Amino acid sequence: MEVEEKIQNLWQEVRDLSLGTPPQVDHLPTPPTPLQFLRDYLTPNKPCVISAATHHWPALSLWPSTSYLRHTLSSTPVSLHLTPTGRADSLTQHPTSPSSLCFASSHVQTLPFEDALNAVLESDFKRVAYLQEQNDCFRGEYGALASDCEEDITWASEALGCRPEAVNLWIGNHLSETSFHKDHYENLYAVVTGEKHFLLLPPTDFHRMYIRDYPAARYHYHQDSGEFTLELEDPIRAVPWSSVDPYPSPEEKQREVDMFPLYFNGPKPFEVTVKAGEMLYLPSMWFHHVTQSPDNSGLTIAINYWYDMRFDIKYAYFNFLQSIPYSPRKDPASFKVINLESSFSGSACDSGDESDIAESLPNLNVRDDMS
Amino acid sequence: MEVEEKIQNLWQEVRDLSLGTPPQVDHLPTPPTPLQFLRDYLTPNKPCVISAATHHWPALSLWPSTSYLRHTLSSTPVSLHLTPTGRADSLTQHPTSPSSLCFASSHVQTLPFEDALNAVLESDFKRVAYLQEQNDCFRGEYGALASDCEEDITWASEALGCRPEAVNLWIGNHLSETSFHKDHYENLYAVVTGEKHFLLLPPTDFHRMYIRDYPAARYHYHQDSGEFTLELEDPIRAVPWSSVDPYPSPEEKQREVDMFPLYFNGPKPFEVTVKAGEMLYLPSMWFHHVTQSPDNSGLTIAINYWYDMRFDIKYAYFNFLQSIPYSPRKDPASFKVINLESSFSGSACDSGDESDIAESLPNLNVRDDMS
Repeated sequence: MEVEEKIQNLWQEVRDLSLGTPPQVDHLPTPPTPLQFLRDYLTPNKPCVISAATHHWPALSLWPSTSYLRHTLSSTPVSLHLTPTGRADSLTQHPTSPSSLCFASSHVQTLPFEDALNAVLESDFKRVAYLQEQNDCFRGEYGALASDCEEDITWASEALGCRPEAVNLWIGNHLSETSFHKDHYENLYAVVTGEKHFLLLPPTDFHRMYIRDYPAARYHYHQDSGEFTLELEDPIRAVPWSSVDPYPSPEEKQREVDMFPLYFNGPKPFEVTVKAGEMLYLPSMWFHHVTQSPDNSGLTIAINYWYDMRFDIKYAYFNFLQSIPYSPRKDPASFKVINLESSFSGSACDSGDESDIAESLPNLNVRDDMS
Repeated sequence: MEVEEKIQNLWQEVRDLSLGTPPQVDHLPTPPTPLQFLRDYLTPNKPCVISAATHHWPALSLWPSTSYLRHTLSSTPVSLHLTPTGRADSLTQHPTSPSSLCFASSHVQTLPFEDALNAVLESDFKRVAYLQEQNDCFRGEYGALASDCEEDITWASEALGCRPEAVNLWIGNHLSETSFHKDHYENLYAVVTGEKHFLLLPPTDFHRMYIRDYPAARYHYHQDSGEFTLELEDPIRAVPWSSVDPYPSPEEKQREVDMFPLYFNGPKPFEVTVKAGEMLYLPSMWFHHVTQSPDNSGLTIAINYWYDMRFDIKYAYFNFLQSIPYSPRKDPASFKVINLESSFSGSACDSGDESDIAESLPNLNVRDDMS
């Protein structure tokens, strides 16, 4: 049996063993006890959705009202993320080498909340604004909303024996999308208004993500012209990121399927919609892609609790799996898509854990203006 | 990097990540709470020893007295295991092909307890007797002792959400030894009198165990002559078992090291001695080898609780690891030791989970009498 077949067996066995027939994500009517959470979800590294998770939070009735948010946060300075596409931390056309891709981060500016919220509500296909900052912002910038939610998820804190490392707030609209990645955290993701749509794949599906190194770039928004430019970081920095866009346009679909057959022809990702009042347990190391639907006011608001993960035998097994190559003969992406690949050596796909191997990169010309 | 080096990295990473520097087995003064047990030991698949685990059991003061055991069990029929060496379920010289090995099980006879206990106490280098039966015997044959211990380990039952699948009693002496194997159970192992000495290796060390298929055989004890014969099972049955004897005789040491370099030259196994009143949590899938020291009366008595393990992502990862070959160039054992190997295809090392692939075996001549 070739190693490729063994890896495919692993994809299937994880589904068969711990995700049921047909494989699916458990829905719990109410929060589990700490013991149930540890035993049935955290230990087996298995996601679940809790239906009546946060029905007692004042946020559920207060936050759908933009006037409440405007009143409470008023002119508090907050971080606004701007992109021309709604896709921050995502792959896009390389600014100087149009046949290849780069990893683009958003333009970040600090604005009074009222103005920032207007920008989110007024987003269009030329400028998409997203209020988010994955730096514990709910306990920082948004401290005025603290009493609307809980400081931590008590059953999770008890199970894990610690408090959350970070609590983040996300105020966006239907145009924002988060590309496939994984986090080194146990994640409890609560939707307050609107809906979030997750695609989930277990860590064992690593090879199906086609993680390759891309040069880091950042959007710059020009207030006067209302246009974006995309600039490569200087010095150049490599970011390992998933090459897969799970929702290609109809005209790109066949090309994507040909390039990423392990993703498109393998087991389907788990599709999970998390509604207002519900909470997703998103286990550490699971790959996830997120889109969102807005409420009546046009917003999707969520709050997530990141708890430190334990680096145990599962993590060691993951690193071993990651070190085993899937034959390029069966993986056209590895030699077609990324012409930078031979210059890079990283192989992780971690937010906040990017290898800096710029010295090995060719010296790329950076265009300042792509508008 | 060759796959062999990646596998070696895995051995080291499991130690670095979850077993401390230097790697060692945690000792807890008192039993953990169910949450602590789940979070700190069961989830990361990590062993621990609990010091004051069973000090409240009447067994601790009662069982060191053989007169109490004789009085309580009297002539209750019990299962006695006899071998000429103290090594049951272990590799020994093949009865008809002296240059190869077979997997030998003990002769089992049912005797009144008093006689069986005498046999254990009178064991010598010609006949070693062991009172044990891994069939929930503590709740069966030894039911009269039930009130001396606990029916289950309450913190473990609460953590795991179930009662033990089997509770086994072991009454032996210093001559009995259990060869390297793993079990598909979460195991709580309580020593009542004497000491047990464990060698432990995590499941990720699979390739270091040199698991090969051996033909099953069974000792037969002949009461009249006081001699044993060893007979192959008919039809022939293959048992996948570890080839490693961690304590070879001085004259065999170099040969063993040459044949099993991954075991002898790799990271040392964890050495854990469990004393009377202590309990070892032996995680599912960990390889273990056991020897014992007796108390003043010459006995080592222990009781173990087998809880069903969960077959989750860790198990799937293990199966994947097991499917990856370690190059024979670096593994002399795979072509030197077992001349039957090419006829077998199994690769697990599980008590009670042996593949029956007898049809693929050559037709071996079985000698009835090896005395």
